[in-house]
Amino acid sequence: MRILLSNDDGYFAPGLACLAETLSSLADITVVAPERDRSGASNSLTLDRPLSLRKAHSGFYYVNGTPTDCVHLAVTGMLDHLPDMVISGINHGANMGDDTIYSGTVAAATEGYLLGIPSIAVSLVSKGAGNYETAARVVAEIIKRHQDHPFTSPVLLNVNVPDVPYDQLQGREVTRLGRRHKAEPVVKSVNPRGETVYWVGAAGAAQDAGAGTDFGAVARGMVSVTPLQIDLTHYGQMDVIKGWL
Amino acid sequence: MRILLSNDDGYFAPGLACLAETLSSLADITVVAPERDRSGASNSLTLDRPLSLRKAHSGFYYVNGTPTDCVHLAVTGMLDHLPDMVISGINHGANMGDDTIYSGTVAAATEGYLLGIPSIAVSLVSKGAGNYETAARVVAEIIKRHQDHPFTSPVLLNVNVPDVPYDQLQGREVTRLGRRHKAEPVVKSVNPRGETVYWVGAAGAAQDAGAGTDFGAVARGMVSVTPLQIDLTHYGQMDVIKGWL
Amino acid sequence: MRILLSNDDGYFAPGLACLAETLSSLADITVVAPERDRSGASNSLTLDRPLSLRKAHSGFYYVNGTPTDCVHLAVTGMLDHLPDMVISGINHGANMGDDTIYSGTVAAATEGYLLGIPSIAVSLVSKGAGNYETAARVVAEIIKRHQDHPFTSPVLLNVNVPDVPYDQLQGREVTRLGRRHKAEPVVKSVNPRGETVYWVGAAGAAQDAGAGTDFGAVARGMVSVTPLQIDLTHYGQMDVIKGWL
Amino acid sequence: MRILLSNDDGYFAPGLACLAETLSSLADITVVAPERDRSGASNSLTLDRPLSLRKAHSGFYYVNGTPTDCVHLAVTGMLDHLPDMVISGINHGANMGDDTIYSGTVAAATEGYLLGIPSIAVSLVSKGAGNYETAARVVAEIIKRHQDHPFTSPVLLNVNVPDVPYDQLQGREVTRLGRRHKAEPVVKSVNPRGETVYWVGAAGAAQDAGAGTDFGAVARGMVSVTPLQIDLTHYGQMDVIKGWL
Repeated sequence: MRILLSNDDGYFAPGLACLAETLSSLADITVVAPERDRSGASNSLTLDRPLSLRKAHSGFYYVNGTPTDCVHLAVTGMLDHLPDMVISGINHGANMGDDTIYSGTVAAATEGYLLGIPSIAVSLVSKGAGNYETAARVVAEIIKRHQDHPFTSPVLLNVNVPDVPYDQLQGREVTRLGRRHKAEPVVKSVNPRGETVYWVGAAGAAQDAGAGTDFGAVARGMVSVTPLQIDLTHYGQMDVIKGWL
Repeated sequence: MRILLSNDDGYFAPGLACLAETLSSLADITVVAPERDRSGASNSLTLDRPLSLRKAHSGFYYVNGTPTDCVHLAVTGMLDHLPDMVISGINHGANMGDDTIYSGTVAAATEGYLLGIPSIAVSLVSKGAGNYETAARVVAEIIKRHQDHPFTSPVLLNVNVPDVPYDQLQGREVTRLGRRHKAEPVVKSVNPRGETVYWVGAAGAAQDAGAGTDFGAVARGMVSVTPLQIDLTHYGQMDVIKGWL
Repeated sequence: MRILLSNDDGYFAPGLACLAETLSSLADITVVAPERDRSGASNSLTLDRPLSLRKAHSGFYYVNGTPTDCVHLAVTGMLDHLPDMVISGINHGANMGDDTIYSGTVAAATEGYLLGIPSIAVSLVSKGAGNYETAARVVAEIIKRHQDHPFTSPVLLNVNVPDVPYDQLQGREVTRLGRRHKAEPVVKSVNPRGETVYWVGAAGAAQDAGAGTDFGAVARGMVSVTPLQIDLTHYGQMDVIKGWL
Repeated sequence: MRILLSNDDGYFAPGLACLAETLSSLADITVVAPERDRSGASNSLTLDRPLSLRKAHSGFYYVNGTPTDCVHLAVTGMLDHLPDMVISGINHGANMGDDTIYSGTVAAATEGYLLGIPSIAVSLVSKGAGNYETAARVVAEIIKRHQDHPFTSPVLLNVNVPDVPYDQLQGREVTRLGRRHKAEPVVKSVNPRGETVYWVGAAGAAQDAGAGTDFGAVARGMVSVTPLQIDLTHYGQMDVIKGWL
């Protein structure tokens, strides 16, 4: 089995190293990840310049581009065979609810899915150092499950893992994405040259976070597994708009 | 009525100028757009540095960030009142099917929608110079319609306009997003320093492009209007994954 | 006579517009400048991606690169004839003493000089809006002087103009570069995500600023004209190092 | 003795690792280098955003900025004591003649010198993998010499080392900078989206490369040591310009 790993925190990130280490006993691993932290990159593609692919001492490849670029380049221009899976992570921090729209971690997995490959984004719900091995073990179990009982259709799974030792996990739950409150406003500041600048503020707190959501599952100590798709059509609103237009 | 305009082609783009000119008779217009071309930016947010907001001779504001940054900054840190609408475009080129995942044009409108504002992304299906005034007039009509019969719930509309004179339009159609074939592979090249580099290739051709899709509508000379939402949950797959996991 | 104009503040900068307007009666003007503010760019060259050349409504060309890139691209890849002069500016703010090492304004002129073209960098010693027309008139006079009495060898002039109405100028002085005190330390700050960040601080105050220096001339209301060269060899130290090594 | 190391090839570069390893027996070493390859950065400073300082597994610090930023941040905001020396390199490739104007390697050392610290830039004249240990040993010898017989005034040395085993070196020579022929023109190309783009071309061949120059010394298998200064004033031309103006 061949697995392509990527992330959005950069090729040197400890979450990625932990994942690669854990999965290397299960599959042939190739790592292609951004050369620097690209958190918040969403599905952005680099169109105005070409990409370089370089190999680090660790054997990991790094690309001067986005997470989406990494998976796109690896699958369409570098690997001899289609990988059997694309896994993105382990992200340092949650990717739940509306985060999925902005997340580079989810985007790397989405690119794999768009290219026809079962793909998983995995994030550790943590602001501190973190139990990456917990998340890595959860991913390993999902892969083993897939080796025994392959998905019968394309999947794109968004997995969020509580930041606790493995034996404190309370199980797994298949969830829908919750919603956040609106993001905090930009933070106004003045730089040393006297110019006004604005920092993008923090994400909003969880709003729709009850039973069935990713926020809810993680709050109860469970691994949240959300199947994603990429069709943004608002089917439920089509008739209304037809009448309105 | 107050309208916030943005785009992903940059504050100097002719499609944006045409839109601002046309809408200025209908509403108070504020333009906040990227300082440079950010096509392909998707919903990326700038988290590692602060943003600057500057005003050009044209009266348009520009930001050293992404389309999403522009709308986020304008709404949460610059404007005194919430705008009544956010409009993004007129993009130079289509944003249909899977393009919506990568598009900065759609992302700017999505940010407005996430902030609770009715939002429209508008694109001219053109590779050449283009009939921007056709698209601007279509948007003006939608706004007038909204002024007379306001949307009763939040909307995020993705509008694609054929590149023809206005009177050659064949009508409007409410559509779902189609699908493209897989993107072309990366294009391998060698730079003048002898290093191998890779360009992201062209988008795939339309695949799911029949009746009811955005591709199909535009191919018949019609304006395509697709209502979008931002919940990526694959509801139809949740039970399967529950059984599988 | 053909003149190539560039700057480091970006193609939209008022100092550049003023210069182009003033010089257009004296020569054929082509403007090729960075697409965004590249102050502090020094002589940096873009080696890891190719450059694009685009034309704005104003007729000015802009490049997604550094000031050095702009002049390099214009002279070696765009213009049919070698320009007779390269002029960079009018910069918003002084470029005196050690500033010349960091300045993108000086760098653009340096690139012209390296390519064999008489070149001038011009800066307005101002933190406010500024009397750009004063500096533009000074440059026009230098050009007229050159038209009547051409330089007989390659020149690279660094011109700093006090920010006053033209008739308040106290004359011109040929100067050497002064020196600044050490720059202010970096300014430590915390971003909204709780991460420590560091802003490069202000330049140091003028230190060696007496008679004969650029700082001194400008302080007395005079235009400072410093001929520059680009050989960084410390000839006076060669024998000492020979003995030491 | 405390030494600050930096470079422009990035904190992961083998030339830097070799230098740190060799010097660690002579002094306390701190490494602060760019997070990615910044070749060609010259003395550029990052003014429009703050810098981050992070520590890699190797113990090296990396900064999301230029070589100049790295030294500036380390000396003015991070280190408790002024380092006794700043050393930049070992660069992968020569920095001779006009290269010094564009070089990020030289710029990092220049920043140390401007801050009052004896500084050395060291480059391996190589396009291949290279005998980094030869250059590291040369630097170690210069440091030992400085420990025994300290420089009595500030120095900024530009050292270029032939890419041969140490015992094939033909000695050392104190040199002046040579000159190159004009750079090659930009290389015009078309990207996959049909847009014309331009790559900055190769540096020119050595022109002024005879006896006494850095090019000449290296061509004879010798280590070239050029003392540099940073005053760009063209003293020899001041009287001419006075007469002309």
